[in-house]
Amino acid sequence: MLNFDLYMPARIVFGRDTQHKIGELIKPHAKKVLLHYGGGSIKRTGLYDQVVKSLKDNDVSFVELGGVVPNPRLSLVHEGIALCKQEGVELILAVGGGSTIDSAKAIAMGVYYDGDVWDIYDQGLDIKKALPVAIVLTIPAAGSESSGDTVISNEETGRKYGYGHPLLRPLISVMNPELFFTLPKNQIANGVADMMSHIFERYFTNTANVDLTDALCEATLRAIIANAPRLMENPKDYDAWAEIGFAGTVAHNGLLGMGRAQDWACHGMEHELSAAYDVAHGAGLAVLTPAWMKYVWQDNPDMFAQFAVNVMGVAKGLRNKEALVREGIARLVSFYRVMGLPQTLSELGIDESRHEEMARKCTGDYFGQEEKIGGLKKLGWQDVLKIYQIAK
Amino acid sequence: MLNFDLYMPARIVFGRDTQHKIGELIKPHAKKVLLHYGGGSIKRTGLYDQVVKSLKDNDVSFVELGGVVPNPRLSLVHEGIALCKQEGVELILAVGGGSTIDSAKAIAMGVYYDGDVWDIYDQGLDIKKALPVAIVLTIPAAGSESSGDTVISNEETGRKYGYGHPLLRPLISVMNPELFFTLPKNQIANGVADMMSHIFERYFTNTANVDLTDALCEATLRAIIANAPRLMENPKDYDAWAEIGFAGTVAHNGLLGMGRAQDWACHGMEHELSAAYDVAHGAGLAVLTPAWMKYVWQDNPDMFAQFAVNVMGVAKGLRNKEALVREGIARLVSFYRVMGLPQTLSELGIDESRHEEMARKCTGDYFGQEEKIGGLKKLGWQDVLKIYQIAK
Repeated sequence: MLNFDLYMPARIVFGRDTQHKIGELIKPHAKKVLLHYGGGSIKRTGLYDQVVKSLKDNDVSFVELGGVVPNPRLSLVHEGIALCKQEGVELILAVGGGSTIDSAKAIAMGVYYDGDVWDIYDQGLDIKKALPVAIVLTIPAAGSESSGDTVISNEETGRKYGYGHPLLRPLISVMNPELFFTLPKNQIANGVADMMSHIFERYFTNTANVDLTDALCEATLRAIIANAPRLMENPKDYDAWAEIGFAGTVAHNGLLGMGRAQDWACHGMEHELSAAYDVAHGAGLAVLTPAWMKYVWQDNPDMFAQFAVNVMGVAKGLRNKEALVREGIARLVSFYRVMGLPQTLSELGIDESRHEEMARKCTGDYFGQEEKIGGLKKLGWQDVLKIYQIAK
Repeated sequence: MLNFDLYMPARIVFGRDTQHKIGELIKPHAKKVLLHYGGGSIKRTGLYDQVVKSLKDNDVSFVELGGVVPNPRLSLVHEGIALCKQEGVELILAVGGGSTIDSAKAIAMGVYYDGDVWDIYDQGLDIKKALPVAIVLTIPAAGSESSGDTVISNEETGRKYGYGHPLLRPLISVMNPELFFTLPKNQIANGVADMMSHIFERYFTNTANVDLTDALCEATLRAIIANAPRLMENPKDYDAWAEIGFAGTVAHNGLLGMGRAQDWACHGMEHELSAAYDVAHGAGLAVLTPAWMKYVWQDNPDMFAQFAVNVMGVAKGLRNKEALVREGIARLVSFYRVMGLPQTLSELGIDESRHEEMARKCTGDYFGQEEKIGGLKKLGWQDVLKIYQIAK
């Protein structure tokens, strides 16, 4: 086990009707908030009215800024920062999914930064202060409700950068699984693939003596695999949503990766797909993850055999190790298929024409500074190219 | 799954040499601290000098108060409160195990309470403020390094009361498994029994649809069961201690019990053994837990069959459900035996003479106000008496 530093301050208020508590929960922390959200869906579902009522009932005043889009934009962040400064906002309340939360975190730190908040992303600056962020979650997937991470796109330069800091971990996240009932099935499946990948990136490691976190990762993956298909049959299954919603938070609050060298190659490779072809993050991960497994498993066959047995339920020792590993991967592919997720890059509309460009971009080689990605196996651009080809 | 409210703010700084960071970690939060500890062991091991050096190197000044004893006492808490007020202390630094941490929490809230801090325990008052508590942990077991709980004994009245509040959750807990190398074997075993019980009290439930936390509980128990016996062979096994230390925190930081009706009958029944006979908490739990299981399993056979299979590794479906459950309990007993823990109350020097008195005390019947204890099965005093008799 490696040394680690675990910090999970976000208070998770979970369950039926919890969105009505948001005003009461915020009241001790702020008199005035920025109510931040995306398109009109929260107005259509009535959630907007419920949140506003809860704020008013608790004498929390607010200004609002809607319009967050997937791959949230810097221009809206700038607008939010100006509004917060002008109005003396003390807390950002994000009502939405990962994009809205990421935008809220950008505003939260931008309020205390004298220059352009983009500098923080671009130069990886160390922030000293941020407004607190509270959340009413409407899409469980990104894990942004418990993490200190944010990803913002700069429309002017076309760059999309991530940034993480402990000060950006949310103060309070309210999660009512009933709010997920209206999600379309492809979004459910993408979310599930994303949260599973958050665990895979932590789970697949060469670090020895990590029994506890091995077992916690496997436990969370099994709970997701057992419950997610129920949502494809009935997207209003409260019990299944409760498992999936909670699992999405556990997957990304930091706990499962403690003491382990982490990987994150699949996230890096998928980032290029999304950037070049605007595919959904979860769908890209579902295609790339099995291809990555097929390419790297021989670097740590025991780890992948353990995955096959403890996560995918392959009978231990039935056959040789390679057969065990391949059966584990096959079952994962099969699970993705049950979820209606794509199996190949071509299903995502991605041909081979830009494979090399993406491989060279994601390892930095395109920009003349190759830095291998991954943890379990270090991957150069030629490795990534091979993985794209396996996935084609 | 039940609604829940999860709050785990304690930052866990874990691994080799981390005790040297305590001054740096405290510096942003306090200029002056109360250094609180127990007997002389931290001076013998050199830990005291390391902590003092780290504080001095970071310009954190301190006053000190040693002398915490197992079952920490109110009189020392009073002394600590007076010292903190007089010296303008901004944070309590507990260097020790559960007793020292519990004492530190009592001081932390007492500083902001105008009356006697005992009122808070005695009347269950809602506190509004507490000094932050930081910790260098020397005994992993009680889970007090991440919980908001404290237990204090009032020497004048002979009463021992617990209290819990989110404001008492520690700010920072430093955990270096190397600091556990000098623990005697019986203390290791008692600690392991205690942390396992913290999980059992959350795990055994009638709440349905709790796949994720079921699996997380089972994962943590398996990691403990796999690693604890290694410490009985070699108490300086860093890797095993890392698993056990981390598991002790996960066992009691709140996560594993979220959304579940909890039990806590074994803790209640053990409390009486400790009060009447001054037995070690973990040893008492190791005796009572299997007896409790034998008495209550028929109220939820599926839960205990799941425990047998998923935690104790009994082959599923080999025999009938009762045989499965009994084999699971037998294996737990066998594990406790490997750890050198007692198997019966008589081994603890407890005869039957006070069984009824203890049973009636722990359910409140003794005081004329019986309140059944437990969650999976509600237990009156006659039930508790039967469990003591099974354990005799």
